[in-house]
This record gives sequence, structure tokens and C-alpha cells, in this order.
Amino acid sequence: MTDRIIGPGSTLGIVGGGQLGRMIALAAANHGLRTHVYAPDADSPAFDVAAATTCAAYDDAGALAAFAASVDAVTYEFENIPRATAEILARHAPLHPNAEALATTQDRLAEKDFINRLGIPTAPFRAVDTPDDLARALDALGLPAVLKTRRFGYDGKGQRILREPGDGDRNAIFAEFGGAPLILEGFVPFEREVSVVAARGADGGFAAFDLCENEHRDHILALTRVPARDVAPETAAAAVEIAKRIADALDYVGVLAVEMFLVREGAERLVVNEIAPRVHNSGHWTIEGALTSQFAQHVRAVCGWPLGDPARVGGLPVEMRNLIGAEADGWRPLLAEPGAHLHLYGKGEARPGRKMGHVTRLGP
Amino acid sequence: MTDRIIGPGSTLGIVGGGQLGRMIALAAANHGLRTHVYAPDADSPAFDVAAATTCAAYDDAGALAAFAASVDAVTYEFENIPRATAEILARHAPLHPNAEALATTQDRLAEKDFINRLGIPTAPFRAVDTPDDLARALDALGLPAVLKTRRFGYDGKGQRILREPGDGDRNAIFAEFGGAPLILEGFVPFEREVSVVAARGADGGFAAFDLCENEHRDHILALTRVPARDVAPETAAAAVEIAKRIADALDYVGVLAVEMFLVREGAERLVVNEIAPRVHNSGHWTIEGALTSQFAQHVRAVCGWPLGDPARVGGLPVEMRNLIGAEADGWRPLLAEPGAHLHLYGKGEARPGRKMGHVTRLGP
Repeated sequence: MTDRIIGPGSTLGIVGGGQLGRMIALAAANHGLRTHVYAPDADSPAFDVAAATTCAAYDDAGALAAFAASVDAVTYEFENIPRATAEILARHAPLHPNAEALATTQDRLAEKDFINRLGIPTAPFRAVDTPDDLARALDALGLPAVLKTRRFGYDGKGQRILREPGDGDRNAIFAEFGGAPLILEGFVPFEREVSVVAARGADGGFAAFDLCENEHRDHILALTRVPARDVAPETAAAAVEIAKRIADALDYVGVLAVEMFLVREGAERLVVNEIAPRVHNSGHWTIEGALTSQFAQHVRAVCGWPLGDPARVGGLPVEMRNLIGAEADGWRPLLAEPGAHLHLYGKGEARPGRKMGHVTRLGP
Repeated sequence: MTDRIIGPGSTLGIVGGGQLGRMIALAAANHGLRTHVYAPDADSPAFDVAAATTCAAYDDAGALAAFAASVDAVTYEFENIPRATAEILARHAPLHPNAEALATTQDRLAEKDFINRLGIPTAPFRAVDTPDDLARALDALGLPAVLKTRRFGYDGKGQRILREPGDGDRNAIFAEFGGAPLILEGFVPFEREVSVVAARGADGGFAAFDLCENEHRDHILALTRVPARDVAPETAAAAVEIAKRIADALDYVGVLAVEMFLVREGAERLVVNEIAPRVHNSGHWTIEGALTSQFAQHVRAVCGWPLGDPARVGGLPVEMRNLIGAEADGWRPLLAEPGAHLHLYGKGEARPGRKMGHVTRLGP
């Protein structure tokens, strides 16, 4: 599909119906766009704010084609959709980010190969397709190391840390993952995780938000601070440059996030952990904290519009805290807290580990 | 209906489907609420962002009852719905603002009587029900004067300015209005129009945004500046106090706007022009310009939640400019303008005089 001019009144298709799709839809509505959300789950929070909805599976070729044919452009809120799905969509409407970028970033092995080919460091890694591969990979990378599925992982799902030489039987561990293609990642002695959330426009323009510092709890993002504290300006600039080189190499259009480890053995350096080809939890602070939110920025990019100013509002530091599971029960005191910006995603059940909302605070 | 506790996951019913309803729905979604929009026009912009919609007339008692019974609270985006409609709604769900406040503010005569009874000045006025009433009212109030329908007027519709003694035949003028009940308002030598946008909570709490200064073009709001320039602090405080007394007297819950004339014959003084029992165009600047937007504030109030902080972000001055009719065609340069926050309402046709969007700019 060649790109058309997408203006107010056009319809943006969004694949995926979670909170990210919901917040993209809200930003799109703010610019006069209609949205059509495609998701397999009838309870999808994004359905509640979309002008049109399709509830169908990600491999329903007929529903995908009808959906894409009914909209002016398509984007997606997460990377775990099959490449074949992306290709069906792209036949009927401009798809951003492109299917190749999706395929590269949804496979940890292809992703790390791609990043290393750009001369950007990642953790050392080995493909693991058999129990013997695992033994050889452990010999090569040492311990501790993390065994992960190559695809469909998020929030620590689909991974296992191996710490001790006797940590289970190789065959048993391999079997645990059900025969899925795996990757073993060597240990990176990192001090903190940081991320760059940035956008690349259809014209190749690039705009990065300030460097984020992320704290996880139980493998789930708990807290993002912006700007990342105690990071040399050259390191922060290098992080943005890494994101730009990745976006350029993927011919990327939209918002992406690059998660990096900040390592301080001797000199301060950055090791890329992973690329998220979408708006990202560590960018939620931009709704109030930046002149353009990551969601508005993503809409601008995928519609072929000029990118907005990513500067922080008033240059203030910002903190974004996720509300996980029952933490969202504290919504009323958060509403009463001066200066706290509460967001809730309209999810029914506050299951443990489920991201129910977030709260953003500006200022020192 | 006694009020229930309305929390995330509850459904807010919104009567009226224009841009105000749309922006209320977006703010509600941000707090995890579902919305159900009731409007008679299938093209209603608010339908595009609501979880549920009812397209039916404002006098369809069955549809109104079913709508109200399906939601946890009801509010409305404009005052020109029949009182009977409000009363049907209130039988099935908590209605905010209350039906009495609606009835008082939707009739210019009842509104001015109410305001004067509070000891707050308005323009001098007379009820006009016959051509003879008009002659007597003109004798009493002099020229120039404005003849208005008592109900259903907005953006200068339903009014006529009388400037010269020979300005048409009394019978002909009266006939022009089709026999609708009228009011003649005497001239107020005002320098500017200002407005207070404020919220009153279910607990009687009150929070006002800073005083707005409004410029109209062809009777339609063109520009709002905040804070209003060259207004004595005591006058600004008096304006807020007027809004508070009105809100208290109406037992009001939600956001209201009080439009006032700033008069400077000798001392600076305020004359109330009218009350809008709803979110208001002169409050659109609050989306980016205040810590809590008027839409979020209205949602907080009607849900019985604590009111948010109405302070301006960073104490910066703010300017909001409406995009009327073809002005919205300039959306692309506005998207490219650093620091300009563009909002478009998703309306199909850019008819002359139609509010298509607005743009907000912060800073000096």
C-alpha cells in the first residue's frame, strides 16, 4: 500500500485492545480521528473508547482483511502478533511500524543479531534449540544466565534465571519451555535499566523523549523516573543516538522504546536489552510530563504528520508509578493527592500482576 | 435517586453528543470509567469515543429511562434539554447538575431573577410576552437593548440588537421570534467579557480556575486568555465569589461557567451575563493549561470524587483559540507549530460558524 494523506476524520486502525491501544485511541480522538480497534478479547479496554471494534483472532485472515480495508492506516499496540497477520494488514492499508520491524523485534535472536550488526552492544547470547545447545551455551556464557523463549515473552513471562551449575537438569529445563525456540543470554552486570522512548516520522524525522530510569518488581515495571538520575550527559546522548540508529535501520515509523542496561564497570556504558516496536510503559509519564505525549506522537508518526515537541513540561522531573493488581484499589486517595495524575485503564478484574493504571507526579 | 459510590468500572451517562460530551467522555475514560452517550444525531462526535450509545430524541421517555437505568450516574453537556427530560433521567440515576439548576439556567428570565435575588447584578431586563410588553420594556430600559428568546439560545442565535428608536416595527419584531417568550436586556457599557469556570463537588467543595478573558467574533467565542489581563486582584476574587454563591445556591454538582461583563465606569465592577450549567468553551485551555482539566474536574464532581487542583501548570499564562468552520483546515501547520496543542472534534463538515476544534498555547 502506498501511503495516503491521513487527516482529521480519517480512521486509524489499532491492532490490540489493551491499555496501550486505549491510550493511542484517546490521543487519536483528541486529533479528530476515528479509531477502529481489532482485538480477540471481548473485554478489551480499548473497545470502550473506539468508534468501531472487531473482536476476532489474530489469525483470522478474513477479519483482518476486512478490518484493514475499512481504515486509512493501521498500527498495533504490541509486538506479539504473527508476522503473517502484519502482512495481511499491510496488503490493505499502510501499516506502521512496518512488518519487517515487527518481525525483527518480536524474536529475541533476530533482534540481538540486528542490534549487533549495527555495532551496538547487547548481552552475549546463544540460540538454544536443543538440550545440547543449552549445555554448549552455558559453557560459552557461564553463570548466571537467563534462558528465554525467543518469542511472545513479556513482563518476565517465558524466562528462567539459571544461577548455579546444578540448577536443574538440562533436559528438564528444556522441556519446561515446551520445545519453543530459546535463547540463552549471558549476565550483564548492570546498575540500572534505562530506556529511550522516541519517535521516527514518515519523513525520517526523529524525536526522543528524555532518558527514563526504570525500576522493576517481580519482572514488571514498577516505577519510571525522568530524567534518569546520575547519568553523564554523553551517556544520555549516546542512548538517544542508539535509538535513532535502530529506528533508521528499521525504516521505522511510529514510537519505539529501546530498553538498555546502564553498566558502570569502569566507564559508564550502555548495553541494549530489547526493542519494543510500540508505545511503551516507560513512556506513560509523557501524558502530563512532556509537551507531546508518546501516544499523540505515535499518532502523528503513523498518520504522516509532523512530530511534536518531546520536551518535558517546564523542564520538571517526572515520576510514573504503575498500579499493579490491588494497588489500583487506592484510587480514591490518589485522586485526592494534589498534583498526582491518576490514570486507570478500565480493566475489570484486578488480578495479581495485572497493570490496572498508573499515577504520574511532576516536580522535585 | 440517592447517590451511590461511583468507582472505576462504573458507567457515566452523558446526555448530548457534541464536542463537550466528547471531551467529558475522554476524561472519564482516562479515569477508568465507561461512558454511555445519549444524543439524537447519529453523527454525534461523542459517539466515537463512548463504550455505548443511544441515538434517540430528547423527548423519548422510554429511551431516556432505559439509558438512565443502564448507567451509574448521568450528566449533560448542554443546557437546552427539556426539564421533563432531566426529571425522567433523575428518576433512574443520580443526575448532576440537578434538574432545578438546569431549569433555572436554561431560561434567561428565571436565571436573571435568581441571580438578582442573590444580590448579584445583571443587566436590567424585562419579560416580553406581547408587542405591548416590548414597547413598555423599551421605554423602561432605553436603547440600545437586546431582545432575546428566553430559552434555547446559544452563540448569538435567538437574539436581535435594537439600536435606534425606528429600528423596525414592534409587531414585526415580535413576530420574527415566532411568539416565543422573550426578554429585553438593557445595555451594559462593558469593556470586556470575562468568565469563571469552576466546580462544586458533592461535598460542597469548590474549586475555581483562574479568571478567563473572552473575545467573541460574530457572537461566537474566538479567543480565551488566562489570566484575564489588567483586572484588579479584588475583582478577580469577587468574580470567583460570585460563581461560588451561585453554585451554592443551586446546590450545584459539576463544572459551571459564569459569564460576566467587566465594567469600568469609575470603579471596576462585574455584571453577570449568564450561567452555563456545564463545562464551557472558555475552559478548554485547562486541558493542558491547568493541573486538572475542566472535563476531569466535572467527572470528579459528578462521580462524587474529590475535586482536583485547578492551578495553572507552572503558573503560565494560556491562550485558547477556537477553530471555527474553515479555520480547521489549517490543522497541519498547527500540528507543526512548536508548543501549540491542537484539538479537533471529529466533526464531519466544516460549516461556517461551526466549532471544529481549538488550539491552546502556553507561555508569554
